[in-house]
This record gives sequence, C-alpha cells and structure tokens, in this order.
Amino acid sequence: MKQLHQITVIGLGLLGSSVTLAISRSLAGVKTVGYSHRAVTREKARHLGVAELVCDDIHESVREADMVILSTPVCTFEGIFREIAGALPDGCIVTDVGSVKGLPHRWAEKVLGPKVYYVGSHPIAGSEKRGLEFARDDLFVSTRCILTRSARTSSAALGRVRRLWQTLGCSVRVMTPAEHDRIFGRVSHVPHVTAVALVNASNAEEIKYAGKGFIDTTRVASGPANVWSDILLTNAENIGRGIDGVIKELTKIKRAVLNKDVKAVEKLLSDAGDKRAALIKYKMKNKELL
Amino acid sequence: MKQLHQITVIGLGLLGSSVTLAISRSLAGVKTVGYSHRAVTREKARHLGVAELVCDDIHESVREADMVILSTPVCTFEGIFREIAGALPDGCIVTDVGSVKGLPHRWAEKVLGPKVYYVGSHPIAGSEKRGLEFARDDLFVSTRCILTRSARTSSAALGRVRRLWQTLGCSVRVMTPAEHDRIFGRVSHVPHVTAVALVNASNAEEIKYAGKGFIDTTRVASGPANVWSDILLTNAENIGRGIDGVIKELTKIKRAVLNKDVKAVEKLLSDAGDKRAALIKYKMKNKELL
Repeated sequence: MKQLHQITVIGLGLLGSSVTLAISRSLAGVKTVGYSHRAVTREKARHLGVAELVCDDIHESVREADMVILSTPVCTFEGIFREIAGALPDGCIVTDVGSVKGLPHRWAEKVLGPKVYYVGSHPIAGSEKRGLEFARDDLFVSTRCILTRSARTSSAALGRVRRLWQTLGCSVRVMTPAEHDRIFGRVSHVPHVTAVALVNASNAEEIKYAGKGFIDTTRVASGPANVWSDILLTNAENIGRGIDGVIKELTKIKRAVLNKDVKAVEKLLSDAGDKRAALIKYKMKNKELL
Repeated sequence: MKQLHQITVIGLGLLGSSVTLAISRSLAGVKTVGYSHRAVTREKARHLGVAELVCDDIHESVREADMVILSTPVCTFEGIFREIAGALPDGCIVTDVGSVKGLPHRWAEKVLGPKVYYVGSHPIAGSEKRGLEFARDDLFVSTRCILTRSARTSSAALGRVRRLWQTLGCSVRVMTPAEHDRIFGRVSHVPHVTAVALVNASNAEEIKYAGKGFIDTTRVASGPANVWSDILLTNAENIGRGIDGVIKELTKIKRAVLNKDVKAVEKLLSDAGDKRAALIKYKMKNKELL
C-alpha cells in the first residue's frame, strides 16, 4: 500500500471541491489534483485555486494518484471506472462520495482490476446549493462518514480511507453496501422524495402563502435534479419500499383525521414528536447539530 | 366602534405571549391583559411581565376589553366563546390567532351576540418551540397575517384588526374562511402531516444516521401535538384531499423510479426544483425570508 502523496478528485462540484479544499487544509504534503469533464468548471477551479493542479485530461489526472475520489453523480461511476481503469497505478485506492453504495461496489468489482482497491465512502455532508463557488474547506467537520466494505474489500485500503475522512473531521462508521442503501434510502432518499412530492402537489399561486414550515420541509427539493435522479434510480428497490412506508403512515393519519378520532390523531402526532425529540437529543449529544 | 384602550389575550403560550409583548412594544397607551387557564402559566406570565395584568378569572379579563384575541388551540374556541360571551362589552372585537378559520367563524356567529364583532386572524408566525419562555416581541415583524371575513363580518371591525396586525409588523391579506382553509391545508397542514408520516415511517435506530436534510424536512413534526391535532381535525376535509394529492405525487415518483424511467424521474425532480426556486425568489423579493 502506497503512502499518500497525491489525491485526485474527479468532479469539481460543491462536494468535490470541498474535498480538495479540506485536504489542502488538513493534509500537509498531499498534492491535490482535480478533474472535471467541463472546460468551464476546470477554468473556474483554476481561478479559485480549488486544487493544486487541475488537469484537462482524466487519464493524466489519475496516473500518479495514490487515491482517487469520484465526486460525480452515481450513474457516471461505471463509465468513469472503465475510463480510468487502465491509467490507475497499481495499489491505487479508489473511493467516491456517492449517496448510494450497492451498485458502485458491483461496478468497481467488475471493472477495476485486482491491483486497485475500492472502498465506498459516503460523507453525510452537502448542501442544496450547487457548484464549486459554494465549496467549503470545513464542510466535513463534525459530520459522519459511512464507509462500505464488501467481502472483497481490502482492510488496509479501508483503514487508509478511514484515516482520510477522520483527518477531514468526520466520525466514521463502516457497514455493508446493502445496509447502507437500506438505511439511507429511508433517512435521506425517501425524505427527498416526499419534499419533491409536496412541492409538486402544491399550486404555484397558493404556495406564495407558505411559511417557514413549508420552506424547511421542502428545502432538499432544491437539490440538483441530475444528482438526485441518479440516487433514486440506483437505489430503486429501497426507494419503492420507503415510499410505501410513508404512504402507509399518511393513510393512517388521513383515516384518523376523517374519522375525527382525536385520540388516534394526537397519538400519531405525539409519537412523531417524541421520536424526533430523541433524535435531536442524540444528535446534540454527539455534537452533530452545530 | 370603541377606541382601543385594552386588548386581552386568552392563552399565554409562545404565540399569545408574543402578541402581548408585541402590542406593548408597538402600541403605546394600550393596556395588555392576559389570561391562561393554568395557574402555573399565569404565575410565569406575571414573573416574566408578559402582560400588564394577568387575570385569574377569564370573565374579569375580558370585561373591559376593546379587543379579545384567542390564542389557544382551535378546538377550544367554541367553549371559550360561550364562556366569555356574557362578559364581553358591547362593541368588543373578538379575533384569534388560529390556523383554521372556517369553524371559528361558524362558532362565533352561533355563540357571540350581535353586539360583538368577530374577525378571523391567522398570523403566519410561530415556532416548533412551546411556551411563553420563547415569546418574542418581534415575532410578527415581516410576516404575513391573513384576515378572514364572512358575509356577516363588520368592515369597521376588520379595519381595526387589520391596523393592529400592520402595527405589529405584518403585511395583511383578507380572504374568506373557506379560501383560507383550502390554501393553508395545502401549504401548512399537509406539510405538517408529511413530516409526521416521515418520522413515524422511520426506524428509531436508523434515523441516528439522519443528516441535515431529514432534520429540516421533519422540523415541524416537533410542533405541539395538541395544537396540531386541533388544526387537522378542524380542517379535516381539506387535509384528506391534500394527503391524497401528496400520495398521488409519491406514487408518480415511485412508478418512474421502479420503471427506471430516467427522463420522468428527472422531470419530476426538476419541476419541483423550479417551482421552489420561483417561491424562494418571490419570498426574497417580498422580504419574507430574513
């Protein structure tokens, strides 16, 4: 396993650029290299000094990398793995910041050779804003990062990736890709879907009367459509089941309300309040809400 | 129509106490009187100086009031109207801060005599926090306040209530109770229901992995269960229809995702993003997002 001299980030949006900036801030001696398939993004990245070197050629960007971090929409991973596979040096670690982990593991095992180590990463950080202009070198401070390992994942590579995220400020937890996709389907992808459904169900004139509640409840629906479309499509089965779960709960509330069942309505509301209060308490204790 | 010398607020939670504090700040010469049915709340209200006078007796609290503002859960309005009807001076204006307006209008017309004027108010302000400790004298600054009038509402009383809310910092819009309940069913009550459904559909262990998206999307679910239970039950038909609308949109997304219909998924997501962007732009222009 190589020492870390160069880390290459492919995809220089808000998340990718925050990774290069955070590495520059926290890892002295590691060279950051960036690549974006868009010339205008590469230009901006150079102008803003987001990475030490921004390459015009994807092969060139990874040829001397000890670690490559994909920070593009999940659906592009398979194609990028194919594109860079031949250019990766032996012993290189490949990871990513995608919100889905099952398919990336399968693609990596199929496409990347046996001399390259894949580990899945999912830092729970981001923003509904888009673009490297909004990148922050402290985006990962006090956040969680989930790492995923399959039966074929190298423990040494996993340890290396773990130390990287810890250095950037994350508390790291390891799980299987299947476990990851089930959990994040429910706590992240399905909430995104309900926010989108709420906005789509609303009338453009009527929502002018919306207050802070609607604004907060639907905030995530302003996230980039292409990124989220990829997430939903690559975690489809979990999303389908999660939507069914929400519809079931909505139907319970509807029935209780239309039956004027005061006790049932109050219980559904107070159960949610209690569960959320416990969550907030847990997050505060873990200093995850700043 | 009387001049405003005394305004009585019944119910001294976060909203009621913010009303008395805001009146004290903005309306010199108007005496603020408060009443709560709980002795412990009255004690706290006196201790914190939330109103000039806090009465132990509800009749006494309204006997010299030029305006009475109900700030209790909507379901209590009919009972309170009955209780105070005999004690209200002729010409008194009665209003409220409830989130539902159809039933309060019907109750007022049935219970309050012809010498008392009822106008519905719904200031779009509040918090998921509870209790007078969180009251703020600037809670209504730069917010909207909806006033509701039926065929029997006095224009003079409406004008008086309108000036009150404007003085507290609200921009006022007048509509019918039916229009109000339809609109706020969709932009406020149904989003509350979806937040509750999301929390109830989640697994207590799994939500420990929730990020900022889940926290924001479900924030309103921490609102007081008794207040929201009242809102849902008094606006039941609109809530039922609104939940159906959200389920319809959830089902569209589910179908597109399970069919791996990339174009359909992207369109559903970008439609929501565009609609929400227009909303944020409108709110910024109106300085309603501070």
